[in-house]
Parts: sequence; structure tokens; C-alpha cells
Amino acid sequence: MTSIDLNADLGEGFGRWQLTDDEQLLSVVSSANVACGFHAGDAATMRRVCELAAERGVRIGAQVSYRDLAGFGRRAMDVPPAELAAEVAYQIGALEVFARAAGTRVSYVKPHGALYNRVVHDEEQAGAVVDGVLLADATLPVLGLPGSRLLELAGKAGLPAVTEAFADRAYTDEGTLVPRGQDGAVVTDAQAVVARSVGLARDGVVTSRSGTPVEVRARSLCLHGDTPGAVDLARRVRAHLERSGVRVKAFG
Amino acid sequence: MTSIDLNADLGEGFGRWQLTDDEQLLSVVSSANVACGFHAGDAATMRRVCELAAERGVRIGAQVSYRDLAGFGRRAMDVPPAELAAEVAYQIGALEVFARAAGTRVSYVKPHGALYNRVVHDEEQAGAVVDGVLLADATLPVLGLPGSRLLELAGKAGLPAVTEAFADRAYTDEGTLVPRGQDGAVVTDAQAVVARSVGLARDGVVTSRSGTPVEVRARSLCLHGDTPGAVDLARRVRAHLERSGVRVKAFG
Amino acid sequence: MTSIDLNADLGEGFGRWQLTDDEQLLSVVSSANVACGFHAGDAATMRRVCELAAERGVRIGAQVSYRDLAGFGRRAMDVPPAELAAEVAYQIGALEVFARAAGTRVSYVKPHGALYNRVVHDEEQAGAVVDGVLLADATLPVLGLPGSRLLELAGKAGLPAVTEAFADRAYTDEGTLVPRGQDGAVVTDAQAVVARSVGLARDGVVTSRSGTPVEVRARSLCLHGDTPGAVDLARRVRAHLERSGVRVKAFG
Amino acid sequence: MTSIDLNADLGEGFGRWQLTDDEQLLSVVSSANVACGFHAGDAATMRRVCELAAERGVRIGAQVSYRDLAGFGRRAMDVPPAELAAEVAYQIGALEVFARAAGTRVSYVKPHGALYNRVVHDEEQAGAVVDGVLLADATLPVLGLPGSRLLELAGKAGLPAVTEAFADRAYTDEGTLVPRGQDGAVVTDAQAVVARSVGLARDGVVTSRSGTPVEVRARSLCLHGDTPGAVDLARRVRAHLERSGVRVKAFG
Repeated sequence: MTSIDLNADLGEGFGRWQLTDDEQLLSVVSSANVACGFHAGDAATMRRVCELAAERGVRIGAQVSYRDLAGFGRRAMDVPPAELAAEVAYQIGALEVFARAAGTRVSYVKPHGALYNRVVHDEEQAGAVVDGVLLADATLPVLGLPGSRLLELAGKAGLPAVTEAFADRAYTDEGTLVPRGQDGAVVTDAQAVVARSVGLARDGVVTSRSGTPVEVRARSLCLHGDTPGAVDLARRVRAHLERSGVRVKAFG
Repeated sequence: MTSIDLNADLGEGFGRWQLTDDEQLLSVVSSANVACGFHAGDAATMRRVCELAAERGVRIGAQVSYRDLAGFGRRAMDVPPAELAAEVAYQIGALEVFARAAGTRVSYVKPHGALYNRVVHDEEQAGAVVDGVLLADATLPVLGLPGSRLLELAGKAGLPAVTEAFADRAYTDEGTLVPRGQDGAVVTDAQAVVARSVGLARDGVVTSRSGTPVEVRARSLCLHGDTPGAVDLARRVRAHLERSGVRVKAFG
Repeated sequence: MTSIDLNADLGEGFGRWQLTDDEQLLSVVSSANVACGFHAGDAATMRRVCELAAERGVRIGAQVSYRDLAGFGRRAMDVPPAELAAEVAYQIGALEVFARAAGTRVSYVKPHGALYNRVVHDEEQAGAVVDGVLLADATLPVLGLPGSRLLELAGKAGLPAVTEAFADRAYTDEGTLVPRGQDGAVVTDAQAVVARSVGLARDGVVTSRSGTPVEVRARSLCLHGDTPGAVDLARRVRAHLERSGVRVKAFG
Repeated sequence: MTSIDLNADLGEGFGRWQLTDDEQLLSVVSSANVACGFHAGDAATMRRVCELAAERGVRIGAQVSYRDLAGFGRRAMDVPPAELAAEVAYQIGALEVFARAAGTRVSYVKPHGALYNRVVHDEEQAGAVVDGVLLADATLPVLGLPGSRLLELAGKAGLPAVTEAFADRAYTDEGTLVPRGQDGAVVTDAQAVVARSVGLARDGVVTSRSGTPVEVRARSLCLHGDTPGAVDLARRVRAHLERSGVRVKAFG
């Protein structure tokens, strides 16, 4: 039986501010990308999300980011690699304390926002993220885009490299994401998203923007948690996957 | 042979700003209270200090603080206890990653600045700090003032409570610190500081402000690292302790 | 014809996070307490709120706070007075730039959260807030609780002292607020809030917790904008005031 | 008689941390680029520097930066233009309050660090900085590199564009700065720096890296204040300028 991991960003509030519906999303996903305080995620929220995730058997990952609360980690930054590596390790360590207190562990790392996009191509920053992960734990899987520098360097460094895909994003004929900002980059029709998730999870195939089936091999599907209707859509994706014979479980 | 621990605050720069002469102080102390990013201490500095401390066999402690870079952690804050506990654990976890990467561990916790002073008397915040330590590691010693709420609650919670004294602070006849701001609260004469450190370390006795010998039992002496001449004074204290038959080594 | 000012806290998001429904509230209130970046309020939000307020003829006030994004300014802090005064002035100046760009001015100052509560009794911090206002503009009105140290010292310093009351808070027989945390401190019944607002605005009277009518003279009523149903309740209050012959207009 | 402006970055400490010797440098320069809190510069320091500058007749400029305390504003950031413009205006407004309190005004704007470098070529960010200045005050001069996008767009927007040069930086044959990181990019010999400052100020000429005299027209010379010996070198530059018949006075 085929299985797929479902991951989503969680704990993305800060202090008084809420963003993600952590409680509901934790009943859908198998992996929780928990914000670690640099783009979002105060300490008390990190603790609570880890406790809830542990209760429900959801795997905890460190969603590491540039240090940028004002920009929610969406401002690409030229951080010198030694500083970036240390900042990545810092965030993983901070989250680890709450994962352990909840009886589990940080089980993977996924960069957030502008850092996620940057390490697709930027060798220096991708290497810095890998160095940061190695500082924290030389066995931690790294989650990212197929073909990204990040996964390539993670693999070279002996870290498990885990690919992810997006059911709500358009793909090119080459199997890469259509950049945000281009027409049709985001799939907004809920039914289409649900259908695409099964194609990606079960068959490793998605219909490209031009209408061609292209292969996209991914071990995890990323669900977005910060949009209206996100929880409902996530539930429908999961239900449809299960009805289609795809088991939802954490990768690895 | 009597022994005493010497501790000092280290890594108290932030980004471009330097404060403590970490390299020199690490050749004097046996325990390093490393800033964890809330009052000072960027991630790259934390990493470097942990590496240097590990090389020299200096024990690493987490110097936890209120979240207050602008005030250097010297502004007392009414942080709700659940938030404070989580913030303390967050800081310990972040430092632990660098201690482990350097081949060692965070071996104790010491509150910084306004938090240090507050938990002498404030039951709620003292309890929150203890809760934070328990979240991170239920075996970590806590360093503080003899008679403080912090050490009392730490002890009740099963955490080793380690007392410290100050050779450069005046004491009352009751063996408590003369509050800063009162005349003569700080001993500025270097020779007197050196002499008092031996009395405290070897005999557990210091001359009070009124001239009376009073008992002050402490397992660690705190040296200040952020004043002009601090490194030189620290070296003199250590040399005089050793000449006086007191061995400098980490507590416990 | 009697008139009353209605004020509410606005612009209390930060970057990606939203809190107050600024657009809707600006159609109800006559005075907008705009967050200035220390507890909430990024620069782009400050600009937008000032533009909207200016368009609608709503007066702009600086909602100054402790420097505490993580605690939303609700953590009382022992900030040395000279630092607090400078921080207050800094926030007023930052907001003034957007008020002027929108063709208007910062027209009053109201402390936020823990600072608001602290300056009711704390002479030192109340004096520091007044000093900060004087640094920025020696003619700016200060908004606060009747009988507070803040208004007393503002008045002594020649700043207009403007009193405010709360239709959704219980009052003691002495005309002071029942502290939050005590039973019945907050009036949750919408109809009662609406009725009380007219009593306060038109007659300067409110029924105390014990059922006695007490005098509470206030030139402004504070509406809360960050609770569910806040906008609707604010609208009902305003409509009922107007039907009752009370005109809503900015104080002064 | 020829005159030249001397500018330096001031107030670049933060809370407990000091960096620039503000008091000494204010006795040398004619223009003070005061940090506004985003890369450095707490409110109390801003106030003090403004007071000292006003006392000594030194012109105050807003040294605006990316929001990046951890990186001291040296991390280039992809800030969306509307946010960057608002952040620039915010900083100018915050400083203006202290300049006015000291009896003077913010008289120019100079970007700091990575933002300074970015707006040499980046049209979007240069435009955003100009927009931010226009929001604050449509008459404020902007200080930057000759030929930079920043000065070009400032000029188009009707803002006075003021050029600056560096006596301690190497120049190419085209009159542009040799990028940091290349051999010989920084002139470290104090006597050479002093000599070059006169050439730049009096004759508008500097010897390029290849030994060719090149024209560099600048109305201000930037002195670095955060290096050991900075104050002494600044004094020597000023003394030599004056002996050479160049009067030091603020531009414009």
C-alpha cells in the first residue's frame, strides 16, 4: 500500500497573535513544521504545539528561518554562512527542548519562507543550512524541493534528503514549480487540489500548466495552513487520499 | 584540599557588539555562564564560546534572562509564569545545541540580571524558572544566592541547588548582600577583593560592612567580566586562591 | 448638546499578523490609538492606519508601550525613567511622520497595556511618560484614567489631561475600575455595555458593582477592538449614543 | 575658500553596548549620521547624541537601515518597497523628535550598511528609500555615492542629492570604489588617508589603485568611527584639511 506524508507549517503565531489553527491541523497532518521563534513561534506556543503533536503521534520538524519577525521570514537576507549555520542550529536546539519535554524528538528540518526559496539555488546558504543541521544532529532528515541545492548538499553530507510536492501549486513541464507571481502559479480550486494530491501521492504524477502529465516524486505533500478554509481543504485532501488507497503516515 | 568554583558571565556581546573578553576569562574561570540570546549572545558567539570552553575544560552554564536586548536583561518584567518557564527552557535548549556540538553539555543554569534579583524573593517567578529548567533537563543544577526562593524551590524540585558568593560585594551582618545603590555596596579595592575571595572560598567567612566576620557558605564565586580591569582582577583572584591552597574547579 | 469622544486601539497587528479590524473601527471611533511599533504596529500598518484615519476625520493618538513584542506590552517592566521617556518620545516621533504624511498630526498620547496600568500609581514611570511627551510636543493631551498619577503629572506639566471611562468594565462604589481578575470585572452583556455607555457619556454616571450609581466624569469612552464582535458592539454603542442625543466627536 | 563636510556614523551602540566614541567624534565632524534604532541606536542614545550634536553645531542626519540588530544592518534584505519606504520614514520620524527637542532638525538622510550598498544599483530599493524620505520631509537632502541610483532618483524626486567620498578607500580608474574584499580596497596607512582627504576635498582628485589621478567630486567626506584609532585619525584629517586651506563645514 502506498503511503505519503502530509506536512504543514504550525505554531506560526507570536505572543498575542495567532495565525495557524494548530489544534485542527494536528488532526490532519503527519508532520508538523513548527516555527522556532525567528519568523514566528514564541516559546509557550512551541511548547504547546509539541505537546499536542506528541499526543497525536504527529512528527515534529524544526521550521527554521531567517531572523525576521517583522517580515515573517519572507525577506531574503544575505546572512554570512557561519552566522546562518549557527542560527539554524540555535532554532533546532530551542525546539528540541520542547519536543523532548513532550516525550519525542525533533525529527526533521525544513527551512521557511525566503530561506526555503533561497536554498533551492544558493549554494552558500544551502551549505550553511546543512552545516546548521549537522551542528544540531548529524542524523536529521532535511525536507525540501526535489532538485534543490539544499537536498543535494544534505545528501552529500549524509543527511536524509526528503522531497516534497505541493498539490496547490502549478508545475512546469520540467516538473518544477511555476514561480509565484506568474499567472496560474497557485491552484485555487479546492477540488483540483484534492485530485492533484492523489496523483502526486499515489502515482508521482501531476498535470503541468500546459496540460502534460509530468513526474514529480515526493515523499511528502505540503498543505498550507494559514489561508481561510485551510483546515477544511486539508481534511478533504486527507480523506480523499485515504479513500484512494493512500495511507497518510510520516516519511521514513 | 578545599576547592571552589569560579564563574563569570561570558558571551555577552550581540552581533557587532562585544562586551566580555571571553577568550581571556575562559583561561581563569571553571564555569562559564553563557548568554543565550535573550539579553545578549547571538548564535555564532554562543557557538564560539562553547567551543573555547570545551577546549579548556570549562563547564558551560545557561545564563537565562528576560527577553530584553534593549535593557540587557536588567529591566524586571512581569512575565506570566507559563511564558517565563517556556522562555527559560527555550534558552537552555538553544545553548545545549552548541554545548553538544563542542562535545560537552549544558551543566547548570544561572538567571541573569533582573531575573536573578527577582527570583531571590519572587515565589512565582522562581517557580517558573525551576519549571523551565525541569522542562529542559530535570538533573540540571541551579546557581543562585544562598537563601533565595530560587534555590529553595530548585531543591524541592530535586534540582541540585548551588550557592554562590561575591568577593566584590559588601555583606550585611546577616550574610546577605548589601543592596546596590547603598553606600559601599561594591568593594572596589582590588586587593580587598582578592583577600575576601580566599576568606569566602577557604573559610566560608567574609567581613561584613560593620566589620564583623559572618559566615557565607558558597560553592562558587562569581567574578565580574564586563568592567575595565576585570580580566586582570580575575587572574589575581585565581592566583591568590591557588597560593592559599584552594583549588579552582567546577562545583559538583 | 452633550458630546463624547470614542477611542479604540488600532493598528495592533505586526507584519504578517493582524489583530484589530482597523478599517471597520475607523468608521465608528472619533479617536484612534495607533500602535507605534513597541508592542505592535509595523511601519507600513502605521502608515495605512494614519491615511485611513485622516480620510475619515478620525483623530490620531500615539499608543505608546513598553518595548515588548513578545508580550504585546502586557508585561510590566522596570524601565529606568530616562530610558522610558526617550522610548515614549521615539514612538511619538515615529507615528508623527505618518500622521503628517496623511495631512494631520499626532493629537494625543495614550499608554498601552502594562504601562497604562503602571502609571495609574507609579509616580516615577508616570513622570517618565510625561517627560517623553514633553520631549515630543509640549502641547499634546494625555489620555488616561481619572485620578491616575499620569493625568496628575501631565496636568502639572501643562499637558491637557483627558479622562476616559470603560462601558464594559465594572466600577467600584468609589468610581474606580474593579481590577481584572476579580469576579464581574468585565461587563460581557452587550446590551448592558450599550446602556452604560450612554450613562457615562450623557450623565457622567455608571452603576457600580454593588448597584449604586456613581459619578465617573470622562471625556472619552474606550471601546475594545480586539475581541470577537468588537466592531458590531462598537457600532451599537455609537448608534445608541447618537439616538440618545449624545454627539460623538473627538475631545478638545 | 574651499570647504568640505565631514560625516561619520554615530550613536551606534545599543542599550548596554557601546561602539562609537560619540563625544569625541562630535568634536571633529560637521555632520553626524545618527543610528535610528534599526541596526543600532537605542532611544536614550539617540537623544544624547542629538543633544551633543546640537550643542556643538554639528548637523544631524538620519542613518536609516534595514531592520536588523543581529546583523548590524549588514545583511542585505529583500524588503518589499512599500515596507522599506515606511521603515525609512519611521526611522526619520523617530530621530526627528530628538533633533527637535535639542533645538534643531534632522537635516539629511544617509542609508547604512547593506542598504547603502544595495541602493547604489538596486532601482527598486533606491526608489523605496526616496519614497520614505519624501514621506518624512520632501526637502531632506540624501547623502550617497556619486553615480548611485539613490542619488539619481533622489534628484529626480526633487530631493537635494549630496555626494560623498572616502579617503580610506581605494578607487578605480573610473572613480568608483574598489569593492571591499579585493586586495587594497581599504587604505590603512594613516598618513596616506590624511593626504588623500585633502586631494579629495580641495582638488576633487584622488590617486586610483593603478596610480592614475582620477576625478571624484564629493561634497562630504565620510570618516569611519568604529575602528581603533578612529578618533585620532579623524582629528588628523580635520587638522590637515584646515592647514591646507580647506574649511570644514556642513554641506549646503
